Amino acid sequence: MTQDLLLLAFDEEAPLARSLAEALDCRLAFVQRHRFPDGELRLVLPKPLPPQVVLLRGLQQPNEKLVELLIAAPTARELGAERLLLVSPYLAYMRQDMEFTPGEAVSQRHIARLLSQHFDSVITIDPHLHRIASLDEVMPRGQGLALSAAALLGRWISEQVPDALLIGPDEESGQWVSEAAAAGGLAHAIGRKVRHGDAAVVLALPDVAVQGRAVVLLDDMASTGRTLIGAAQQLLARGAASVDVAVTHALFNGDALPALQAAGVRHVWSSNTVPHESNAVSVVPLLRTAVLQSLPRPAGEK
Amino acid sequence: MTQDLLLLAFDEEAPLARSLAEALDCRLAFVQRHRFPDGELRLVLPKPLPPQVVLLRGLQQPNEKLVELLIAAPTARELGAERLLLVSPYLAYMRQDMEFTPGEAVSQRHIARLLSQHFDSVITIDPHLHRIASLDEVMPRGQGLALSAAALLGRWISEQVPDALLIGPDEESGQWVSEAAAAGGLAHAIGRKVRHGDAAVVLALPDVAVQGRAVVLLDDMASTGRTLIGAAQQLLARGAASVDVAVTHALFNGDALPALQAAGVRHVWSSNTVPHESNAVSVVPLLRTAVLQSLPRPAGEK
Repeated sequence: MTQDLLLLAFDEEAPLARSLAEALDCRLAFVQRHRFPDGELRLVLPKPLPPQVVLLRGLQQPNEKLVELLIAAPTARELGAERLLLVSPYLAYMRQDMEFTPGEAVSQRHIARLLSQHFDSVITIDPHLHRIASLDEVMPRGQGLALSAAALLGRWISEQVPDALLIGPDEESGQWVSEAAAAGGLAHAIGRKVRHGDAAVVLALPDVAVQGRAVVLLDDMASTGRTLIGAAQQLLARGAASVDVAVTHALFNGDALPALQAAGVRHVWSSNTVPHESNAVSVVPLLRTAVLQSLPRPAGEK
Repeated sequence: MTQDLLLLAFDEEAPLARSLAEALDCRLAFVQRHRFPDGELRLVLPKPLPPQVVLLRGLQQPNEKLVELLIAAPTARELGAERLLLVSPYLAYMRQDMEFTPGEAVSQRHIARLLSQHFDSVITIDPHLHRIASLDEVMPRGQGLALSAAALLGRWISEQVPDALLIGPDEESGQWVSEAAAAGGLAHAIGRKVRHGDAAVVLALPDVAVQGRAVVLLDDMASTGRTLIGAAQQLLARGAASVDVAVTHALFNGDALPALQAAGVRHVWSSNTVPHESNAVSVVPLLRTAVLQSLPRPAGEK
């Protein structure tokens, strides 16, 4: 067991935390968290902390969790952490990357800067980046490390649906979907997203034959699920034999999952970046490698 | 009208914002705020901004509002603000000022540092400081300016209840209550708070005769109101002619106000630091003076 490394996590992510600690062969501890009636948070960390600390915290519904991080990080330093990594399997605020209307806050830049000021490295999976190519553009000095669950999802799908046709949502995700297809040895095609406001996004399907095909809709994330529902209905209307859904981040809110099922979607699979009943693919192997790469190599190892 | 100064506020604080803008004789604009289904915030500020910007944002139920500030502040700088003041009539996270149990986050220090990194000055009223004497200890370089509503409350009470006996909650508030008493020309006495957990605080009343007296319970803030309710019941049982309550910060949650009334409290008054139906005393004159002191003096003025 690695004595000078501790994985620090929050209760909501206990299963992922246990699995990652086991893979890293390191100790695991949980941040004690209490919320006062006035909304203030009280956090208690283990004391003392070893020199290397990995804080695991996904940022779905991010605001309160961001404040937790901004309190927990300097506290961890005070308690002995010399190298402090953030593993945020889902990283929020990555979409607002330009001033779409005059005066609009480019929150991606500001949130990324806060995180990079508080952590030596930030490891995440499939950040929802639009117009920028990599996390390096928002987190300087190589602090941001973006992994992809595309290949893991592709391999999972190929085991479940060996002749699947993967359909990705838009050109932006083209590279990502083709990675999944390559890893799974599957065919793929790319549609086009047409956005109207927050929740109303229509997926214009690619011009491929779907009659009799087992289609798997692939996306980096899903929250309301409306886009996927619309796409599934179109595919079934065009004669697809089955429609499954696979996403990295299962942000599904409220009735998204039953609504997908009601629309005729057969299986919904996700990676375990966001705890959800659809979790089918573990990102722990990815996170383990990235954490080990981000830590100084112990003496004696090559 | 001061052309190079803008007061920037959020909708929830519109009445206080209008009154402060009028007192400062400056323009007022509101931050447009939208919350996406995934919890992320979208903020739009006026563009361009003048060189001096005052952002008004009270931090009751603070976490989401802190994230707003951490996004809005750098955005304001990008849009032209050279001097950026935060007026936070209620400042959160001021109570957690030491490590009560091993490993406990001293959130006061971390939140104060974040605010002082993002704003040139932070103006607040009656911060709930315990073991430290002033904001200077948590915000270096004189950035923190703590005003007190004690004298305003004392004068208001003396107009409503000319022969009031003010009772303050504990020794920590002794100086503050005696200021209120002096400003109103009123008698006062100090009790003692005995705390059990979050919400269970018992006020041990001071040893003064209350028979037939019009008592006003004074505190810097109230949230559940339980302490005040217990004190009011004790006072009425001891024969007080009336019990009123006056607080700076009306954080009252849920049924606090009806519960106070049910316990026999006659009037509940508060300053307008936190918008609430009990608001009776305006802190605008205090804020105006503090803002003007915190801005560079315009050329030609002494």
